[in-house]
Amino acid sequence: MISKKEFQQLHEDIKPHIHRTPILKSNLLNELAGAEIFFKCENFQRAGSFKMRGATAAILNLDEKSHKKGVVTHSSGNFAQAVSLAAKSLGIPAYIVMPSSAPEVKKAAVKNYDGKIHICPPTLKDREEAAEKIIEETGATFLHPSNQLDVIYGQGTAAIELLEEQPDLDLIITPVGGGGLLAGTALAVNYFGNNCASIGAEPFAVDDAFRSLKSGRIETNESTKTIADGLKTHLGDKNFPVIQEFVSEIIRVEEKEIISAMRLIWERMKIIIEPSSAVALAAVMREKEKFRGKKVGIIISGGNVDLSNLPF
Amino acid sequence: MISKKEFQQLHEDIKPHIHRTPILKSNLLNELAGAEIFFKCENFQRAGSFKMRGATAAILNLDEKSHKKGVVTHSSGNFAQAVSLAAKSLGIPAYIVMPSSAPEVKKAAVKNYDGKIHICPPTLKDREEAAEKIIEETGATFLHPSNQLDVIYGQGTAAIELLEEQPDLDLIITPVGGGGLLAGTALAVNYFGNNCASIGAEPFAVDDAFRSLKSGRIETNESTKTIADGLKTHLGDKNFPVIQEFVSEIIRVEEKEIISAMRLIWERMKIIIEPSSAVALAAVMREKEKFRGKKVGIIISGGNVDLSNLPF
Repeated sequence: MISKKEFQQLHEDIKPHIHRTPILKSNLLNELAGAEIFFKCENFQRAGSFKMRGATAAILNLDEKSHKKGVVTHSSGNFAQAVSLAAKSLGIPAYIVMPSSAPEVKKAAVKNYDGKIHICPPTLKDREEAAEKIIEETGATFLHPSNQLDVIYGQGTAAIELLEEQPDLDLIITPVGGGGLLAGTALAVNYFGNNCASIGAEPFAVDDAFRSLKSGRIETNESTKTIADGLKTHLGDKNFPVIQEFVSEIIRVEEKEIISAMRLIWERMKIIIEPSSAVALAAVMREKEKFRGKKVGIIISGGNVDLSNLPF
Repeated sequence: MISKKEFQQLHEDIKPHIHRTPILKSNLLNELAGAEIFFKCENFQRAGSFKMRGATAAILNLDEKSHKKGVVTHSSGNFAQAVSLAAKSLGIPAYIVMPSSAPEVKKAAVKNYDGKIHICPPTLKDREEAAEKIIEETGATFLHPSNQLDVIYGQGTAAIELLEEQPDLDLIITPVGGGGLLAGTALAVNYFGNNCASIGAEPFAVDDAFRSLKSGRIETNESTKTIADGLKTHLGDKNFPVIQEFVSEIIRVEEKEIISAMRLIWERMKIIIEPSSAVALAAVMREKEKFRGKKVGIIISGGNVDLSNLPF
């Protein structure tokens, strides 16, 4: 596990390549929630999500030889964009395996950041094989979006910045999907918080993290029908132990609560957040008694939304 | 006309009641436009638009006796919300005449700020009569959204803030509807700019301001079919002379250019702006040669959008 000093150094190392995102407040949302909420706006991060932090940390962690050969990942979401942009910024190639079913808008975003797209059939097996083939041919290093330690530490730097500016937060809530953001945040809270708790929020529809904390082993989801499309994956063996040790609770929310929280933030704060990000506010609105009078940090994970397909 | 010193004092007076809104930049939009653009984000202003500035300035300008009796306006848009919130903040009643056709979401916003709504039939004559009746009964003062000098000066304070932070802007562009924002901005640019020009932007569909500058008299629109619903009104006798003296040009844009500029800002900057605000960026994208290499200020006028009725 990374030390506090190493964590600070990693943060310094990635700083030139990421935005220091703003922390926003809304009087109206505070009134509605009965708490004081500080939104760390990773929707304004480069490539539109916190994943830019982890991708940058992982690429900076490569040795010189691996660095030149580039990186590969299979993703159709925010990590694909983040790896492409981080690799471009650091001057190395990024190979992105995407399923043929990926929307054009996501392919366009990756191309926009000079990611080299490899289309494969839409199964996990095909994706993994395609990535393997690229690794054999190019010597590129595989990056995992959530279950890789340097990626997890990178994601945690958003919470470091939030605690630098708001050192007396009572708790920080993040959405939990693959578990990278929550694990990184919980580790940052442990080192840099002051009596601060880490809480995860996820949809009832994909409550694998909630069940995993109960059972003590990594649970999966039988179906993945949720609007929070970034939260469909399950935890991994690298982040689960961190979450077990440092996360106090996972709060689950209904789909309609997610849409309602998303709409509140769009209408009242005039910022665009993706459905997965709304899950954290939905948790605060659902369990108001728990948060009443507290200072609450929320990591707004990203703002990459298909405007042609909104839930309003 | 207000002096430079009085303008600064008016800005000081309203400061406690308004937000100092952020100025945002986007590397990607700068690349696309070939210019350096500074967005003054009045979509983050209280009540969601720059109109909070003018409403506050006008209410602070009332004498003590009038102050107690309150204010009245007829509007179904941003000025209704701004007057309601400004009056609430300053502890006086606000009477808002709204046509029966006004959307529920707009009535709810006014009620949310404790504005007293009077519903009337949806014609201008009915609105004016309803306002007259309230004035007779209550002694309240009528506030005009764009053709009243203290309102105009209030709107100009957004440009003062923009020029304080970016003193070497080559020009500032605002959308032009009733003309209050453009006139106030042009006056601020005249006093506080450094070789800075003022430009208005409006849809071809309601190009009354463009035609008014050509003909030298206030022109009206035969039809008002535009997505930029804040720009349907024509200039007034108080703001037209200011616009004639200090505005160098009005640029007209197509409806599809407005939608495309709006989408660019939503997708790339992750902020919610209303269609009327997108008109200014649409003008920059349409006439790229004119703005190439320039430092351009854009006043993002507001962010009050009906999410159930988007053009994407």
